Order: sequence, then structure tokens, then C-alpha cells
Amino acid sequence: MENFTFKNATDIRFGANRIDSELRDAVSQFGQNILLAYGGGSIKKSGLYDRVIKALDGLNVVELSGIEPNPKIESVRDGQQLAKDNDIDVILAVGGGSVIDAVKLIASSKFYASDPWDLVLDSSKRFEMPQVPVVDILTLSATGTEMNAGSVISNPDTNQKLDTFGPNTPAVSFLDPTLTYSVSKWQTAAGAIDIFSHLAEQYFDTAQNNDVKSGMIEGLMRTVIKWAPVALKDPNNYDARANLMWASTLGLNGLVGTGNANEWTVHPIEHELSAYYDITHGVGLGILTPHWMRFALNADTQSLFANFGRHVWQLDGDNATIAQAAIDTTAEWISSLEVPMTLTGVGIENNEHFEAMATSAVSVGHLDHGFVPMAVADVVALYEASI
Amino acid sequence: MENFTFKNATDIRFGANRIDSELRDAVSQFGQNILLAYGGGSIKKSGLYDRVIKALDGLNVVELSGIEPNPKIESVRDGQQLAKDNDIDVILAVGGGSVIDAVKLIASSKFYASDPWDLVLDSSKRFEMPQVPVVDILTLSATGTEMNAGSVISNPDTNQKLDTFGPNTPAVSFLDPTLTYSVSKWQTAAGAIDIFSHLAEQYFDTAQNNDVKSGMIEGLMRTVIKWAPVALKDPNNYDARANLMWASTLGLNGLVGTGNANEWTVHPIEHELSAYYDITHGVGLGILTPHWMRFALNADTQSLFANFGRHVWQLDGDNATIAQAAIDTTAEWISSLEVPMTLTGVGIENNEHFEAMATSAVSVGHLDHGFVPMAVADVVALYEASI
Repeated sequence: MENFTFKNATDIRFGANRIDSELRDAVSQFGQNILLAYGGGSIKKSGLYDRVIKALDGLNVVELSGIEPNPKIESVRDGQQLAKDNDIDVILAVGGGSVIDAVKLIASSKFYASDPWDLVLDSSKRFEMPQVPVVDILTLSATGTEMNAGSVISNPDTNQKLDTFGPNTPAVSFLDPTLTYSVSKWQTAAGAIDIFSHLAEQYFDTAQNNDVKSGMIEGLMRTVIKWAPVALKDPNNYDARANLMWASTLGLNGLVGTGNANEWTVHPIEHELSAYYDITHGVGLGILTPHWMRFALNADTQSLFANFGRHVWQLDGDNATIAQAAIDTTAEWISSLEVPMTLTGVGIENNEHFEAMATSAVSVGHLDHGFVPMAVADVVALYEASI
Repeated sequence: MENFTFKNATDIRFGANRIDSELRDAVSQFGQNILLAYGGGSIKKSGLYDRVIKALDGLNVVELSGIEPNPKIESVRDGQQLAKDNDIDVILAVGGGSVIDAVKLIASSKFYASDPWDLVLDSSKRFEMPQVPVVDILTLSATGTEMNAGSVISNPDTNQKLDTFGPNTPAVSFLDPTLTYSVSKWQTAAGAIDIFSHLAEQYFDTAQNNDVKSGMIEGLMRTVIKWAPVALKDPNNYDARANLMWASTLGLNGLVGTGNANEWTVHPIEHELSAYYDITHGVGLGILTPHWMRFALNADTQSLFANFGRHVWQLDGDNATIAQAAIDTTAEWISSLEVPMTLTGVGIENNEHFEAMATSAVSVGHLDHGFVPMAVADVVALYEASI
């Protein structure tokens, strides 16, 4: 187990319908000038927008709408201007990972005189400046952004999709499983695969004997595996939505990566796919993950894959058999969520960008420091195998 | 899954020898007047005391030593006086659960004009007053106090051992597994059983489908079960000490109780034992736990005990068989840690106080709201079965 520092002060309010009585105080503790950020019209259709506006009655609310999936730097620029012009005290994000990711960077950008893309290219700048507090109401279980300090921001001009980190996690996150009842099957499946992938990225690590995190991850994986199909079949099942939501938060709040040694692998490889082709992130992860597992399985890693099979998939047998079966079973589970299992299935039918994408993934993702290090040719081969 | 609020801002510094470079800043960020609290002479013998004094060189350090196991209200009274007299800015606790428990109450008592036992009898007072920040260096993996807001304080005059909660968890906790190399076999075993019991109290809960917390607990239990015997055999095994230490913290920082419904059971019943007889808390828990499990196993709880057998002990078979075997296996594991399995073994050879103890446990512990509710006669029977 490696040394680590862990601190996460986000105030989680988990449960149905807490915003109506708690949102106003949670937001106004930081001031009266509020930037309300959201995506498309779904929160208006669902009635959530009206509930939020009612809760904030009497406060100064400025709106930033239209934050898109795979949020673009342009939305952040718009938010930066609004935050400066209105001397915003607190940002309230209502939405999924994209909206929350965008506002975390806006929260830093208020205090930055120049283009916020600079802050993505060099996150260290963000640690030298203040950050407006962020409150969020989560409407999609997937990225874990509601309890971490990271964002993924895209720049279509440069075909880049990059991580950026700030000094603070959200101050308050409202996690209401009932707000995810209306999430489509496609997004529910993609979200569940994203959660699973976050867990897998942290499970498959070279740090030895890190059993606390391994044990917690195995439990969280079993939870996602069990409840994702239930949520697909019965979208209003509270327990399914609740387990997926809390698992998504804990999957990426820093806790289950404590004591780990290496960098992530599949995420940087997928980020290139959605940067170039704007596909759904979780679906891209689902396509790549089984191929990556087959690449990563070798004599050194076999026992960890076997543990994965034993404790996550309840498989019995010798290590070699279980390790292989665990990968096959993972692929079957992803496929059972009714998502495409090939790049062709999401409209990527030729390899024209694979070399450039692989080169970028290796460099941005430090894939030479992954669980099993990957060179450009390995990543190209992974893309090819996924077509 | 029940609604919950979760926030825990403790700054965890995990790893070997971080205090030498990090302790001074961690403490002095809160001020120059420091109350240094510890127990007996073990930190002087080990050299830890000298390292702490060196790190704090130039700051104003006042000492409170001699805080005993099952910390007494008298130590808190002494600390309260020192904190007031020296206008203490921050308290540094060096020790195990007892020292940290005591200083958390001292941290409130500085701002209280009267006897701190009042604050134990009515914790709500503590939420209306400030609290001096607490920094700690943990030397025993057991209670989880290093990342929660609770303390257990004893009052020998009244034969009471009571929980008290304040508004804050420790500000910074240094978790250095190497500082537990010198912990005796007895205390290592008692600590491991305490961790296991915290996990069991939260695992066996009436909230349905709370799979996130169940899955995490199963992983943490497996970790404790695996590494406690290793630490007994090989006290300087870093991985054993590290896994036990991080599991102890996560076992009681609020996380694995999220979404739960009922009160704890075995802890209040044990607290009476150590209040009356001053036995080692973890050893008392180890004696009581298998008997409590046998009491709690019934048609309604069988499937949860079977899950416990499947995911914690890797048992196969039908629910009835696994549930029973899981309890037997738990008893065997506790016994393998070379601790007494009977009350006689810790010098409690007659039942003279059982009725009074049971009456108090039921009332203080709200045992009518436990996983399986217990009346006074049930608790007396549990004590009798444990003789």
C-alpha cells in the first residue's frame, strides 16, 4: 500500500425530495448572488427547474443554460463572464456530470483574468486562486463529479478532451435517486458502465496488498452489476437508483483509490474517442473495457483478475480459468445492458484517426505508468480490436 | 436504503514517518498554544515523544499525560483546566482511542464553564459552542475515533460509560502503520475485534437493499480477518498494520453506516462490562459477539447472515447452513486471535451485576431499536451464556 493523503469535505444530502426544504439554506450560506447552471430542457420538463426557482425565491439568480454533454470550453467561457459580471457568490449546478464538471471550472475562472482553457492546460494555476463554492443537484449517476475536484473539458478547436483539477470538491451535493427515474435506458446503461470502469481503473493497480480498497471496490462492483439491469427494466425502482447513485459517488471521490500506485488506462483511451467522435463516454468505456482486460491479463496480473472473478463474479476454479471467465462475464454483463459492443456500433467505421488518438492517449494519460504499460502501438491495436 | 447526510472533513495523512516533516505545519496552522495529550510512558519508550517535541520546537507546548484506557472524566477535567489556563489553540493527541476520545471532549470543554460530565450527559450542548481543533497521531488501530466525532467516556463514580458526540471530527489525523509495530498481541487482537465489531454492528441492519454499505463492509471484514493473524505473528509486517489501520478508520467514520436504520447492539452491552469491570473493550466484544449472533439469527435475519457467510467467509450452501456456519466461523476466528472467549476468562465469575448492567444497556443503547430488539431479560441471558 502506497502513502496517501485523503480529505473530502463535501456535504452529502442523500434521499428523496430534500431540496425543497434544504436547498435554500445550502446555497445562501455562501451569499445572495447565485449562478444557476444547467443543460438542456429536461429539468424544465420534469418540474425540477420550477422547484429550484421556488426554493431560491428572493435570492439573485442568474442563469447559464445549455451546457452540453462532454462540456465544451465555450460554456465555461460564458459562465466565467456571467460570474464576473454578476459577482457570483455561489454556483448551483443542476444536472449530470457535464454540468457539474463545467461549473467547477467556472468557479475557478471567476478569479482568472484570461481564457479558462489556460487553466485546463495548467491546473496548478487553480490552486493559487480562490474558487466560488459549488452546490449541485445531481440528475445522473455516472461520473462521481459530485464528490471530487475534477472535471473533463473538451475543446473542439483542438480535438482535446482533458482532465482538470481544482482545490475544492463541491460544498454540498444533493443526491436524490428519484431525480434519476427519468434517465433514459441508454444513459442509465452508460452511467452504470462509467461507474464500473472507475472502479476497475482503481481495482487493477500494481500496489500490493491494498486490500482495504480492493474489498470496498469488489462490493461496489457487485452493487452496480446487480442494480443496473434492475434500473433498466424498472426505471422507478428507488433501491436500484439509490444504489447506483451512491456507488457512483463513492466510485470516484478519492476513497477507493487510496494507497494505489499507477495511472488509469481505459479512460484516457476512451477520452480520445469522445473527443474525436463525441460518442457517449460510458458506451465507449464499455466497448473498450473487455479488450483492455484481455490485453492486461498476463502471468503477473492473473491472480488479481482471479480475485476479481472470485469476489465480484462469484466464480470458482483455478486462477487461469477464473481470470479468463471473469473477463468474459464482464463483457456479457456490459452487453446485457443493451449498448453497442463495437466501435462500428457507434458509427466509428474506419481507423483514420487511431494513430493520432493513440499518440495523444499515451501522452496525456501517461499510459507508460498504467497497470500494464501501453505504447502507441498497443493502443492502436486496442482500437482496431474494438472495431 | 434510508436517507442520510454524510460529511467528514478530516485530513488523513497515511504512511510511514510523515510526522517528522508534516506535523509542525499541521498543528501550527491553528495557533501557537498546544496541548499535547498522551497516555502512559509507551510513547517515551518508543521515541515517538521525542520526535513530536522536536517537530513542535518553538511552539508553546503544555502537556497532559496519563490518560488511561477507557478514559475517565477526571482526565477530561484536568485537560479542561489546562486548556483554559493556557488559552490552548489546538490539541495534539498522541495515542490510541482513549487519548483521542478524551481530547475531543476536552476540545469542547475549554468553552464550557462547568463540569464536562454535563456535556457527556447532554451532547447537544456541544453543538452550541466552539471546539478547539484536534490533531492526532494514532498509535493503535481499533476504535476509528481518528475520523469521527464521537468519544466514549467513563465515570467511575457512577459506573457509567457513555458515548458523547461533538460537532467536529479531528482536523488532521496522522496514520502511520509503523507506530503500531510495538502494539502487544493482546491489544492487536482486541483492536482487530473492535474493528470487526464496528463493521458487524453496521452490517446487521434492518434497512433493505443497502448494498453499497454491505459490499464495502464485506470487503473491510475480509481485510481484518486476513491481516489480524498476520499482525499477531509478525508485528512488524507493514501491510498487515496498514490494512488494519485504514480498515479501523473506515469502519467508523460514518461511511459504512450510511443508509442504515437501526441502533447498535453489542457495543452498549459490552460498555456495561467494561464500565463495571474495566476489561479490555475489544476482548469483551469478542466474547459477546458470537452469542449475540446466535440470538439474532432467526427466519427473518437468516438471509443476511447467509450473505455474511458467502461474501465474508466464502461459504457455499443453502441459507440455513451458511448462516449457522458463518457464526461458528466467526467464533473460531476470534478464538484464533488468542483472546479469552468467556467472561470467566476475564475474571467475571458471577452474575451479581448482570440485571443492573442489562437494564442500563437496554436504556442507554436503545436496544429496543436494535437489529433484533432486545429486552432486559435477553441481555441478562446473553451475559449468562457468555460466562
